[in-house]
Amino acid sequence: MTDSARDSVLVAADAAELLAILRDGIPRTRAQLAELTGMARSTIASRIDTLTAAGLVAPAGDDVSSGGRPPSRIRFNPESRVVVAIDLGATHGVVALADLAGNITASESRRLDIADGPQPVLDWAMETASELYVASGRQPEELIGVGVGVPGPVEHSTGLPVNPPIMPGWDRFDIPAYIRRVFDVPVLVDNDVNLLALGEQALMWPDETDLLFIKVATGVGAGIISGGRLQRGALGSAGDLGHVRVPFGSDTPSHGEQDADLESLVSGPAIARALSEAGLPAETSDDVVALARTGNPAVQNAIRQAGRDLGAVVATCVNLLNPSMIVVGGSLSRVGEQLLAGMREVVYQRSTPLATQHLTITQSRSGETGGAIGAAIMVIQRALDPDAGTPRSLFR
Amino acid sequence: MTDSARDSVLVAADAAELLAILRDGIPRTRAQLAELTGMARSTIASRIDTLTAAGLVAPAGDDVSSGGRPPSRIRFNPESRVVVAIDLGATHGVVALADLAGNITASESRRLDIADGPQPVLDWAMETASELYVASGRQPEELIGVGVGVPGPVEHSTGLPVNPPIMPGWDRFDIPAYIRRVFDVPVLVDNDVNLLALGEQALMWPDETDLLFIKVATGVGAGIISGGRLQRGALGSAGDLGHVRVPFGSDTPSHGEQDADLESLVSGPAIARALSEAGLPAETSDDVVALARTGNPAVQNAIRQAGRDLGAVVATCVNLLNPSMIVVGGSLSRVGEQLLAGMREVVYQRSTPLATQHLTITQSRSGETGGAIGAAIMVIQRALDPDAGTPRSLFR
Repeated sequence: MTDSARDSVLVAADAAELLAILRDGIPRTRAQLAELTGMARSTIASRIDTLTAAGLVAPAGDDVSSGGRPPSRIRFNPESRVVVAIDLGATHGVVALADLAGNITASESRRLDIADGPQPVLDWAMETASELYVASGRQPEELIGVGVGVPGPVEHSTGLPVNPPIMPGWDRFDIPAYIRRVFDVPVLVDNDVNLLALGEQALMWPDETDLLFIKVATGVGAGIISGGRLQRGALGSAGDLGHVRVPFGSDTPSHGEQDADLESLVSGPAIARALSEAGLPAETSDDVVALARTGNPAVQNAIRQAGRDLGAVVATCVNLLNPSMIVVGGSLSRVGEQLLAGMREVVYQRSTPLATQHLTITQSRSGETGGAIGAAIMVIQRALDPDAGTPRSLFR
Repeated sequence: MTDSARDSVLVAADAAELLAILRDGIPRTRAQLAELTGMARSTIASRIDTLTAAGLVAPAGDDVSSGGRPPSRIRFNPESRVVVAIDLGATHGVVALADLAGNITASESRRLDIADGPQPVLDWAMETASELYVASGRQPEELIGVGVGVPGPVEHSTGLPVNPPIMPGWDRFDIPAYIRRVFDVPVLVDNDVNLLALGEQALMWPDETDLLFIKVATGVGAGIISGGRLQRGALGSAGDLGHVRVPFGSDTPSHGEQDADLESLVSGPAIARALSEAGLPAETSDDVVALARTGNPAVQNAIRQAGRDLGAVVATCVNLLNPSMIVVGGSLSRVGEQLLAGMREVVYQRSTPLATQHLTITQSRSGETGGAIGAAIMVIQRALDPDAGTPRSLFR
């Protein structure tokens, strides 16, 4: 790299640093930005010009002044770029457009079968994304990247699914290359539960650096945010709660077999099985949710038991990771309070007081588009990260 | 900050970037450094001058040349600065001097009782450190910081112990302020198990980004390195394995009570108790280690059982965190292979194939000074981190 190339990277880094501050949505004056960054006023002015020309920031109306000419404030302009977000579940897909704040501006969803394999599923997703994009009236050069979530382990650095158990035909399929034939931008892929964690933390709990997201649906899995970062583990399989052995005890229901793993007790199908053995009409997670809403006490009891079994495993996670926030999502989290109540019962009993002192256990607030929001956030974080050196691509 | 102050920070950042590359101990030519960093040759030359003047790098003899004047190589000079490392256990303390590579250059240890409270314990540590420092002949300005490990949870940002169960009198005691009255340099404090993890990873497994260190001694605890960083959790209590409920199963010994936590089964005192109930003379971890070395089959069996119980909890950690390396240390790890064998037996059976595919379970290689090495590494990482902006302090 020449010194002048290096200079232009430094320009981009300065601008990205300003952008990183303004991304919280609070408009600021140049003086405030100078104070926050330590940059000279002249540097600030020049970088703001660069960012304004790129559309990434805009004037935000005027500050209340104590007299004289009011100083103008600068705000982040999240509408200036577009992200395509694709969230693929086992039986359901969501395709969305999002702005740079992770707000979904358009979306489409449909039932699908992930086991149909990558080509038909991705073809549908790309076609839908193209339609949404055309309908939005945005220019091709406003697209900064595509984020994809899939229901299985992913080698994040390459975007390849690795031995995904419920995704036949997807093992090591090059999702980024396939998508880049249509959308020639960076394509990032991750596990769906990781993206739920990322989206929930970025939008709902931006100040929590240690958050555990637990998805309870057809399977059970966790997305781990520790030290402010999503943790994927050595091979991308971190968060596999479903195959964890449940540590029973005098505080958990005795219905579990000695060698039961969590998914055999707490997933949608597992609870449905328990209910149908008791003579209630349940086969799927949706049936369980529907039955739960009738208020039937046997159903409430079964869900509370599942919550306690989940709590037995989550208590271990709490001692191990010391999160300040546990968010429960997935289709089964819609059964209502009994799942969380059973979970809290065991977690607070079994975890150490220090680990639970400031622990909040709550239900996910992101709805059907939670995974797509996370996919968008993944792309945005990469594009706007001042350390990653990529923001130059935004200044074309 | 003025533009000129900002420039000098950039100089320090450039120099720190070079230092970060050279820290691996491999000498490099200016041309190699230019290629690795993208800095211009003139920038490299000027930063190398700065680093040489500070003593942090030195000429490393000459490269083999294909003719003409041989290009000279530059090497990191870890001996140029000193770190004081203090490792305090429940009954044992180590005080050491280390260089910038984490090598211990002098050390002292003694038995102590952490429950005597902070002042007598820290007074001994500081007095010992002063004696070692004077004996080393180093100048006061060569000291870059003090690292302290304690056997309890620590709020890392402030260095205050928080409700440490076995450290009466230490709760929220300001260790950094107390030490700075004698050593006026940055003082960093962390949990002893975290420091064992940090030291083991930095010195033995620098390429592993996901490593779990498990200490088995009077208690049981873990230090978690995920995504290349030590994870402390929201309140600094991450890694508390001792109070995790053991998930028994058909593959673990049936001797555990239903509500047993790991520490009641696998710690030194717990195994000693099991042995003494079987008529063998054991009270402490040391007794267990001594008995294990006699080869007595009953002792070997008890240790293997403890290994399986430990494995039952570690299997959950493996599914949750997907580490590539598990290192077992602490006084009880000296009992030999049976502990690890029992652990491996259950971990490989219970964890998912993806999570164990490239998993290594091994014994700690750091000896009695492992905790002190970690304390030194903590200080060095902070001082030499190009992102932290602190390296300026090295250029005085």
